[in-house]
Amino acid sequence: MPEQQDSPTPPEQRPLPAHRRAHQTAHDLERYADLFAQRTRVMRSSAMRDLMAITARPEVISLAGGQADTSTFPPETFAAQMTRIAQESSAEALQYGPTEGFAAMKEAIRGVMAVEGMAPDPEDVIVTTGGQQAIDLITKTLVDPGDPVICEAPTYPGAVPVFSSYQAETHQIEIDNDGMKVDQLEALLDRLADDGRRPKFIYSVPTFQNPAGVSLSVERRHRLVELARQREVLVVEDNPYGLLRYEGEPQPALYLLDGGDYVIYIGTLSKILSPGIRLGWAVAPPPVMEKMALGKQATDLCTSTLAQYFALEYFAEDRWRAYVDDLCEIYRSRRDAMLEALERHFPAQATWTRPQGGMFVWATLPSYIDTSDLLAKALRENVAFVPGAAAYADGQRGTSSMRLNFSGFDEGQIREGIRRIGKVVSEQVALYQTITGEHQLPARSAEREEPPQERGHVVPLRRRREES
Amino acid sequence: MPEQQDSPTPPEQRPLPAHRRAHQTAHDLERYADLFAQRTRVMRSSAMRDLMAITARPEVISLAGGQADTSTFPPETFAAQMTRIAQESSAEALQYGPTEGFAAMKEAIRGVMAVEGMAPDPEDVIVTTGGQQAIDLITKTLVDPGDPVICEAPTYPGAVPVFSSYQAETHQIEIDNDGMKVDQLEALLDRLADDGRRPKFIYSVPTFQNPAGVSLSVERRHRLVELARQREVLVVEDNPYGLLRYEGEPQPALYLLDGGDYVIYIGTLSKILSPGIRLGWAVAPPPVMEKMALGKQATDLCTSTLAQYFALEYFAEDRWRAYVDDLCEIYRSRRDAMLEALERHFPAQATWTRPQGGMFVWATLPSYIDTSDLLAKALRENVAFVPGAAAYADGQRGTSSMRLNFSGFDEGQIREGIRRIGKVVSEQVALYQTITGEHQLPARSAEREEPPQERGHVVPLRRRREES
Repeated sequence: MPEQQDSPTPPEQRPLPAHRRAHQTAHDLERYADLFAQRTRVMRSSAMRDLMAITARPEVISLAGGQADTSTFPPETFAAQMTRIAQESSAEALQYGPTEGFAAMKEAIRGVMAVEGMAPDPEDVIVTTGGQQAIDLITKTLVDPGDPVICEAPTYPGAVPVFSSYQAETHQIEIDNDGMKVDQLEALLDRLADDGRRPKFIYSVPTFQNPAGVSLSVERRHRLVELARQREVLVVEDNPYGLLRYEGEPQPALYLLDGGDYVIYIGTLSKILSPGIRLGWAVAPPPVMEKMALGKQATDLCTSTLAQYFALEYFAEDRWRAYVDDLCEIYRSRRDAMLEALERHFPAQATWTRPQGGMFVWATLPSYIDTSDLLAKALRENVAFVPGAAAYADGQRGTSSMRLNFSGFDEGQIREGIRRIGKVVSEQVALYQTITGEHQLPARSAEREEPPQERGHVVPLRRRREES
Repeated sequence: MPEQQDSPTPPEQRPLPAHRRAHQTAHDLERYADLFAQRTRVMRSSAMRDLMAITARPEVISLAGGQADTSTFPPETFAAQMTRIAQESSAEALQYGPTEGFAAMKEAIRGVMAVEGMAPDPEDVIVTTGGQQAIDLITKTLVDPGDPVICEAPTYPGAVPVFSSYQAETHQIEIDNDGMKVDQLEALLDRLADDGRRPKFIYSVPTFQNPAGVSLSVERRHRLVELARQREVLVVEDNPYGLLRYEGEPQPALYLLDGGDYVIYIGTLSKILSPGIRLGWAVAPPPVMEKMALGKQATDLCTSTLAQYFALEYFAEDRWRAYVDDLCEIYRSRRDAMLEALERHFPAQATWTRPQGGMFVWATLPSYIDTSDLLAKALRENVAFVPGAAAYADGQRGTSSMRLNFSGFDEGQIREGIRRIGKVVSEQVALYQTITGEHQLPARSAEREEPPQERGHVVPLRRRREES
């Protein structure tokens, strides 16, 4: 690291005021507070990001992440790709690129989408700084403060801060084992229409949903697209996990069913190559795309050229499908390990989903357990998860659920992680039983008042067998 | 590139509706238009980005860019850095990182800032997706629609779309050879205060300003910081070019003078390493930084890990100062070549700045020449520049000025580029003289009505000598 000693001393150099840290007090907070934009009052942290610092400690098994296991990517392939870039296009790879992304990158993206049968017009594609930026740019393009936005309950925890940063009025539609309950969506659209309102968009992760792991059924997919077309409402389909299927038959993307008139599509290389290169994309109809490109210009000028060149080398290798197949093998085993460990270590009162792909299991505990409180205890056992409340815009629901990631650690670590969580959960259950004198699972409705949405989003596919 | 033929056919696959393109007509535009956020009505494209597609043609000499010459970065260094990353930390480099950036990256950033005598607390630093994102996050944190923001006239053309995307009320303060006219700033602050208003921040590029190339004098730097502290107004100091000085003595950064209470600092590696890796940073007091980190989470989760690892290898090489010295040598010659070519090829009526560093010359033509119109003619001659109007929020001023970049091309290309622009300018001058019968430069005020700001922002440091 370069140090100061060999630096020329500029004129006027002087040490930082000594009082600097000392006076960072109430006055300062107040001073800056006056200057903050309204949106900052409703912006809150995504739980995953907060956890990142804590879970970076090597002794922690973090089932809180949403990361691909990048150790599966061969270092020699990394080196070979980069060496080719250095030899053939060093200057270009280090230079600015077009706001909407390189034409070759769009072509590679079309190759990825072709695997799921989609063939967007390259003009409709914009390369983004990860899928996250695509959500941000779409919301920036469409949402004024107070505008309704609809998403699933629970929804991707990283989408919640985007919607709140644009001061959207976020409505969440319950899901079950077949994904978003489209009849409830229709009822909500009716209610909004009665007030002369229409949502700016419906955000959905239809396949291997984040955080619940469930997929929207084919029938509901058709119904959702139909609804969008009838009501002239945009659907934002976020599809990070479509290619990570471990069993069952592929389901058609909403974009495929709609043809791209009402469905805006978001994809990413974070799950099939690397999250660290920050490379995603969006596909949108031309009038929307034009505005998104303006937003992108203002936000970060262009997506990293280096990342695009790296990705292009990956696709040029033509072994990327084999790499994704390898990932599916690896993640399938890990999912199985997690489901087995849940059976073994979670108490009888717990339920969880059984995803056919993706990266997440959504587990729900007895409602007297608050998973945000539980997390503090779990961290003392060196294990982490995402508390369910992070998946709700109101931060009030999902309080007895948790998102568990199975892609980031190997089977042994997953089993150990679930064992540790199971331990703190069991302690809570035992404590509750001691206090209440109850040794049977009480009827959930008797426990405490909760909004009806608290129940119902849980997908109790399997119950723990009676003997473990 | 992967092709579709070897893809499994998903169920429900069907071709895109044949009518898709045909019906993208007025109805469609109207349909989406209803859904657009208010901010999109005032968002406009930054001229540089629009030019990018045109100027990508190899025969075009684009003096419109703001790019470092990345061909100066040794491909063998690129390869060596990447090989080390592949060997030592492939999995980490491809993984998510913390929202605020890696601690080691912040340490490297402190090393860069130390060269200009600054020593920020690492806690106050956030690593961003280029300096552009830093401007965006600061504005997102502070600006509500209608809030006043102050910047220079002309200002960085890429800042204009940021301010407009947050619907700021942008005020611009004239500059002269000593940078922003701080007395005019004070008068504006007074006028705003009379209305009970205060700007959310004052955005400035004090050193080798983009687009004008001038630097704020030491005296004005002190006065600006004093004003900020007296009035409790934030200053955003954007300093991409501080290390690219070709002559003269360094001037103290505003951040150094203030100590970081009222000055938010923006830096970037785009000009001293690579714009294509998209790596910049901001330094802000803790309450502001906290909100910016929330904004960053929502926007793109974290800055590219790959980019940070690449940059860390660059700084670890400890030859980065030597590389920046090399850049200064190269760019100094190019600046000289541009100034000489302007003398030779621009008509007597033109004026231009003579920057001591950075990347840009700001040239102003007779006011009867509109540089946006001129650009169309210049492009036919395969040369490009940024029309001056891009540097004004109202898009109305600066219409006879242009920004000329001298860092992106070698001396021969710069001379040829200026020759081509000089040719179309001379044609316009001759045409004007033919039409009006005038052969002397008319008094500017007699030509057409313009706001007073149109004059005054020009910095007529040198006039062409009478004989070329």
